[in-house]
Amino acid sequence: MNILEIIEKKRDKKELSKEELGYFIKGYTNDTIADYQAAAFIMAVYLNGMTKQETADLTIAMANSGEKLDLSTLNEIIVDKHSTGGVGDKVSLILLPLVASLGVPVAKMSGRGLGFTGGTIDKLESIPGYQTGIDIQAFVKNVQKVGISMISQTLNLAPADKKIYSLRDSISCVESIPLIASSIMSKKIASGAQKIVLDVTCGSGAFMQSKERAEELAREMIEIGKLADKETVCVLTNMDEPLGYAVGNSLEVIEAIQFLKGDMPEDLKEVVFTLGAYMIKLAGKGNNIEENKQRMLENVKNGKGYQKFLQLVENQGGDISYIENTDQFSKANYIEKVYSHQSGYIQSMNAKDIGKIVCDLGAGRIRKEDDIDNSVGIILKKKVSEKVEEHEELVTIYANSEEKLKEAKKKLLEVIKIEDKELEKPKMILEIMQ
Amino acid sequence: MNILEIIEKKRDKKELSKEELGYFIKGYTNDTIADYQAAAFIMAVYLNGMTKQETADLTIAMANSGEKLDLSTLNEIIVDKHSTGGVGDKVSLILLPLVASLGVPVAKMSGRGLGFTGGTIDKLESIPGYQTGIDIQAFVKNVQKVGISMISQTLNLAPADKKIYSLRDSISCVESIPLIASSIMSKKIASGAQKIVLDVTCGSGAFMQSKERAEELAREMIEIGKLADKETVCVLTNMDEPLGYAVGNSLEVIEAIQFLKGDMPEDLKEVVFTLGAYMIKLAGKGNNIEENKQRMLENVKNGKGYQKFLQLVENQGGDISYIENTDQFSKANYIEKVYSHQSGYIQSMNAKDIGKIVCDLGAGRIRKEDDIDNSVGIILKKKVSEKVEEHEELVTIYANSEEKLKEAKKKLLEVIKIEDKELEKPKMILEIMQ
Repeated sequence: MNILEIIEKKRDKKELSKEELGYFIKGYTNDTIADYQAAAFIMAVYLNGMTKQETADLTIAMANSGEKLDLSTLNEIIVDKHSTGGVGDKVSLILLPLVASLGVPVAKMSGRGLGFTGGTIDKLESIPGYQTGIDIQAFVKNVQKVGISMISQTLNLAPADKKIYSLRDSISCVESIPLIASSIMSKKIASGAQKIVLDVTCGSGAFMQSKERAEELAREMIEIGKLADKETVCVLTNMDEPLGYAVGNSLEVIEAIQFLKGDMPEDLKEVVFTLGAYMIKLAGKGNNIEENKQRMLENVKNGKGYQKFLQLVENQGGDISYIENTDQFSKANYIEKVYSHQSGYIQSMNAKDIGKIVCDLGAGRIRKEDDIDNSVGIILKKKVSEKVEEHEELVTIYANSEEKLKEAKKKLLEVIKIEDKELEKPKMILEIMQ
Repeated sequence: MNILEIIEKKRDKKELSKEELGYFIKGYTNDTIADYQAAAFIMAVYLNGMTKQETADLTIAMANSGEKLDLSTLNEIIVDKHSTGGVGDKVSLILLPLVASLGVPVAKMSGRGLGFTGGTIDKLESIPGYQTGIDIQAFVKNVQKVGISMISQTLNLAPADKKIYSLRDSISCVESIPLIASSIMSKKIASGAQKIVLDVTCGSGAFMQSKERAEELAREMIEIGKLADKETVCVLTNMDEPLGYAVGNSLEVIEAIQFLKGDMPEDLKEVVFTLGAYMIKLAGKGNNIEENKQRMLENVKNGKGYQKFLQLVENQGGDISYIENTDQFSKANYIEKVYSHQSGYIQSMNAKDIGKIVCDLGAGRIRKEDDIDNSVGIILKKKVSEKVEEHEELVTIYANSEEKLKEAKKKLLEVIKIEDKELEKPKMILEIMQ
């Protein structure tokens, strides 16, 4: 076996064996296969595709390329939840304490944001004191103690995926379904998940713009899950406009806390409850989806979800007084309301464009090493299909520079499209695939 | 313009502009484009192909990537001759002095051999004293003085081609018609040719195994020639068995000298006269192909071709007493005749296999830096379709080690296929394309 033969086979549309894919991943991880050879191979995969079996074998080889999180000491079915990314996506912050309050153990490693999508870890770090970098022993102990822990990726999980991901970025090979699917699933498998619930976002603010592409990605991941013996459910959700009202790190944390206290935006509620109902089911804690949703609603109303969030934060070193009184979160210097120039119905608010505006305010990173500003962002006052009057408030901007504020205001007024035409409220759950 | 967009376009089967291809070649030559980006691009070219215009633009950009030989001071139409490689290919050694003796100026830069095919420069260097590395001024002066000079590539011609060629080799992207065509043509254009005659070899000892592939390559090169304003004629020749009888550096030089003295193997004669007739035509020294062949034959018979070869060698510092008396060439230590084990007709002698046997005797290089042994090789006594009796001589081996001799003998008896079945003499000129 050698890399030239492996490249040649994929170049000629032949199927690679598990051993050949393993050889590639091992060689690339330990640098015996050069970047340029991997680049040629990846381009051949991009253009010629991979079979389901190849994609699963590649994924498993990537999952095995570095450290793996062993959660077997927990003696429970560990269900991981992952989103393919979006704008205003604070789902994990709400959903995970909520299912933990219903007895589903949560041992979650999350990522940071890059580009126009935010990361759960960045959001958690806007809570003063919250430790995202605790070691694995403490992490597992926290799960045993309070049923939930959420940390950043401290282990060297799936290093092959990291290398391939960054290579794909520099050779125009990002938008490949088998490569996206194997990248996501390899990290989930390496992080010890036994079952996986995936929020496959779809629309202007998502990686997958069309429902067809999102379905294709979901099918691929479900298939990998089957072949890797990790039951996987995909919930296709709408990401055409931001999820909920807040976009920006501490603003989203506050929205999540308010949700757990009972103030639930409709779209966010639908997404949280649907994903949660499937997590509960996969964890073996309830087979009836509608009943599961009902139980989650109860645990919002009776405060058990909120209490679990408090426990999580406290246990992780965070200052819970911020949770109890969100006014304590540091405020941006400039807070300005933006009013509509016309009356009509909100036709669209391109989520990616809004994500970029908030990123430009300082909430996101362009490069990995960039610092982020937790206090900036926006709070929408209207959602798509809602009626707005002239001079009525559309959105509030939180900025730390007058210039950036001005720029954001100008762009937001362009992005929020208003017309006379009435339209239906967008559907949030597009499809459940399992 | 940036490399990501250029890769993306080729990935998506879109046509690249001259500027984009120029950007790629410039960036890759000066290392601002990384090997892995070039690798992804080359794989996309391999799989998605290039239009005729793209291939020509790439070729011209490659030709312009380094030094270029300027032969305009010669005030003549310079016709270059190139072969896509073969075994026993001593055509240039015979052909170029012969056309020079008919007034066609020859300013030829040749390469060294690698793998199972020999290089003209290696063959010339088996003549003691012959200087292949003289500078460009001396080279041009020699052409002016005696009408011919043959040297090695001393200039940094088409460095982009060198980089891409070596990259292709390490990413399984060698067998791509547009890439092979642009590689050959870029070097010809950079070396100052105004018109080009290409010997496109075809068969077991050639890069192109089938006539269809050879035709495809020829068409591509003719098209590049048209778009680059370098008239190109391709002669498709048979390379299923070695050309002539000798394979090995000094043995081939001796065969070339004997040819020029009038002892012309049929197959070699056909190839030399056909290529030469087109060189004469392109140089504007005679439009009638049959007449041109006749004039070449005359200049063999009257010794003018041989005299031109003597002039070439003398002018380049070579010891002409070796040419006048080829017995002076240093002999291999072991010279052994191999006899047939059976009677019948020679069905085939795989040229590549024979090339490898001779390479293993020490005549060729596995790696660029290897030394070669000029005295070793073989001389065939029979050619395909000829009758052979049991115990009749098939081939003589020239070796410098008993072990290698034994190995060569064993392999040659396997490679030379003999059966009772009569067959026709193979056709040497398969097609003329222009």
